[in-house]
Amino acid sequence: MDTTVGAIFEQGQRSIKVPVPVFIRASASVVGTKEGEGPFGDSFDMVGGDDKFGCETWEDAESTLQKEALLLAIGKSGLSNKEIKYLFAGDLLGQSIASSFGLASFQIPLVGMYGACSTCGLTISMATVMIAGGMAEHAACVTSSHFASAEKEFRFPLGYGNQRPLSATWTVTGSGAFVLSSVKSDKDRAMISGLTLGKIVDFGLKDSMNMGACMAPAAADTIYHHLVDFDRKPSDYDKIITGDLGNVGQKALWDMMREMGMDISKVHMDCGMEIYDKSQDAHAGGSGCGCSAVLLSAYILKQLEEGRWKRVLFVPTGALLSKTSFNEGQSIPGIAHGVEMVSCK
Amino acid sequence: MDTTVGAIFEQGQRSIKVPVPVFIRASASVVGTKEGEGPFGDSFDMVGGDDKFGCETWEDAESTLQKEALLLAIGKSGLSNKEIKYLFAGDLLGQSIASSFGLASFQIPLVGMYGACSTCGLTISMATVMIAGGMAEHAACVTSSHFASAEKEFRFPLGYGNQRPLSATWTVTGSGAFVLSSVKSDKDRAMISGLTLGKIVDFGLKDSMNMGACMAPAAADTIYHHLVDFDRKPSDYDKIITGDLGNVGQKALWDMMREMGMDISKVHMDCGMEIYDKSQDAHAGGSGCGCSAVLLSAYILKQLEEGRWKRVLFVPTGALLSKTSFNEGQSIPGIAHGVEMVSCK
Repeated sequence: MDTTVGAIFEQGQRSIKVPVPVFIRASASVVGTKEGEGPFGDSFDMVGGDDKFGCETWEDAESTLQKEALLLAIGKSGLSNKEIKYLFAGDLLGQSIASSFGLASFQIPLVGMYGACSTCGLTISMATVMIAGGMAEHAACVTSSHFASAEKEFRFPLGYGNQRPLSATWTVTGSGAFVLSSVKSDKDRAMISGLTLGKIVDFGLKDSMNMGACMAPAAADTIYHHLVDFDRKPSDYDKIITGDLGNVGQKALWDMMREMGMDISKVHMDCGMEIYDKSQDAHAGGSGCGCSAVLLSAYILKQLEEGRWKRVLFVPTGALLSKTSFNEGQSIPGIAHGVEMVSCK
Repeated sequence: MDTTVGAIFEQGQRSIKVPVPVFIRASASVVGTKEGEGPFGDSFDMVGGDDKFGCETWEDAESTLQKEALLLAIGKSGLSNKEIKYLFAGDLLGQSIASSFGLASFQIPLVGMYGACSTCGLTISMATVMIAGGMAEHAACVTSSHFASAEKEFRFPLGYGNQRPLSATWTVTGSGAFVLSSVKSDKDRAMISGLTLGKIVDFGLKDSMNMGACMAPAAADTIYHHLVDFDRKPSDYDKIITGDLGNVGQKALWDMMREMGMDISKVHMDCGMEIYDKSQDAHAGGSGCGCSAVLLSAYILKQLEEGRWKRVLFVPTGALLSKTSFNEGQSIPGIAHGVEMVSCK
């Protein structure tokens, strides 16, 4: 466990070595029915009875996911709302309305963020920066996605009943929330030790039904720079975990990493490939901000908490498209933000 | 000029006293034709010949605004792209596509942010946190809006020719970019000394043609907490500057501040009310991320740079709606992020 306080910035390096320990004190995951029926069904904190979560609209249902996840995470942290100085949040919907309407009641100042499906990594990164910089003691992060609101936002309304190719992913209905703190406690699930923020990587791909391929180059870029900046090799990590590349994107990522002389195949895991099992007909896998966020809370942090894993690199991946950019024939650039987490054991 | 390094966090306070000086080394503004014809026409760095900026689509035109503004700001800073460690950016379009497609070529890691028209304040705040925390030496911020892409995104396509009530604002076509640094230089335009991040404030208003009224409560909340946290009164500021409340929102803000025992009428300025003159038929005033960003670069920082103003509170205001939330009958919550800037003279 590397907690050296020292040089955290060198010109030309993209990464940040977190200068003082930042702890993930608590987290929570809330998911929809399909996720509840998947391999991690028993690990989530809450599984909705139906995917509208008692709301009138899909957007409102997604707001409810965020609200419930954050309530649970703050509750587990033992802190009050007032002790959480800032909230870092975002989602996939236009103008991030799932966050705007889900989080108002908490009355906590909001840092709104957008990194498509990489948003979970982005919110945790910036909360870590604020806490490590001494400008907040406790902060919370929350992100979400919802299958039905995402299909409406990016592709077609569900009623249209369009066909999906095998390279398409299934947007996870779920929200993950995390409470970060500079104060060590006996609850801590893991510690954040390094950040590698991603840049926009655009290989010119245009197929919104194959987003894994669009995002894989961004994941490769971030993982490469992380390993170089920290002078490590893939085997120094128990897992290198991408967000939602799916099986098509995973192959592209492995190939690109090999071309750069790094074989990550032995330690790589993709949240999108794990969250559903084959019988659930999710094609290339799960996707969405919620995909990596709920697995981080329900599975990844559990491994770190119990000391089975010592060090992971969590790299949620985002596809920076909108319905408008897609319809106007633009490419789908990718971005991936890397967060290194270590076990407190 | 208050540069004390000291207690920057107290429980229950929303603000951050920036622990080490963060300098605005350079900035730039690029605007459209209508803004170029307005009272600040001569002060902007670049005025487009037509509002498509040589592009095929309005969205692409907005991306070009961001690209040009950032190029100019980095150029003025005397730094190279490689020396800018991180980019903080966002815009009003769904999934922030103006940023995604405008900034890829800079090859700088991107922190995507969303705070509607308050995004300029949010990006500057988080860049300041990162720099003050010692995790970057130089960072850049860029935000934009475009009248035509915003009308299409939030209201009606221009071709529809809808009527606009007098309470409606006119989205500014423009982008402002800022280079922030921990290293003092002889170019510095101003110094950032305090941050007051805003929370979501929702008074239940639903009229997207009267966003000034929707955002005024959020502005009042942020200004109130800023003054209380720093133990100051309005007259301690040469200006308290909101983003785009327009004349309807300004009245609401003054009234709310008076109810809280603070009269800001003598020092208040609203960027939206200044950017066009009466003859330009912009109704309640200008709005959009670009509105406050271009006036910050072209006018506000000039006053600080030349020492005419010593201390300002810059509070861009955002309305957290989307076309979907509006059509589903949701209210329009507001948010406002406050950045205190002081003259280096």
